[in-house]
Amino acid sequence: MPRKRKPTKRRAPLTLPALQREIARTFLTRDRRRGVMGTFGWFVEEVGELATALREEKPGSREQAAEFADCLAWLASLANLAGVDLARAVTRKYAGGCARCKRQPCRCRSKK
Amino acid sequence: MPRKRKPTKRRAPLTLPALQREIARTFLTRDRRRGVMGTFGWFVEEVGELATALREEKPGSREQAAEFADCLAWLASLANLAGVDLARAVTRKYAGGCARCKRQPCRCRSKK
Repeated sequence: MPRKRKPTKRRAPLTLPALQREIARTFLTRDRRRGVMGTFGWFVEEVGELATALREEKPGSREQAAEFADCLAWLASLANLAGVDLARAVTRKYAGGCARCKRQPCRCRSKK
Repeated sequence: MPRKRKPTKRRAPLTLPALQREIARTFLTRDRRRGVMGTFGWFVEEVGELATALREEKPGSREQAAEFADCLAWLASLANLAGVDLARAVTRKYAGGCARCKRQPCRCRSKK
């Protein structure tokens, strides 16, 4: 008999505060022990792996998605250490358009 | 007469899909023109600015928050270009604990 698939739960879209809390629960103790700049080193390592995935893997592939997840998770670790609320920070700067020219779409000349 | 403060709206916490949509509305046309690796260059520039802010600014300051916002916005630009859903990617890898040891808190020996 074929195994029944688990019904896919319709999850509410992940919020940034929920992400920061989840990453804190999993990593904050160790992140604190390592410190901000040590943690920054790990983040940059993931940024490097993202570069490789962007060059070598298929757009939107599981491999690329995993590297985006790692970058975002380490960025959340850093934000937790710094005491920065990512949702608030990005809303303040980017809600409703470009932080510099204030338009949507952005019309800055410098971002080519 | 003192100016009345705008009543602070209680916003629902920002979701990752909403962030990706907002960044797409503001930047996707230009991001596409620039391409993935060109956009990656801008992202890395922001990563460098985050390093400076983490070293030089007060933890949790507006200056640090602004650099976190920039990193996250460029990461969202890259995810939009690659066709990666950040919420899905990070949930798949980090919901409920460490991607490697599967525990919460993480007990990997290698992440020191």
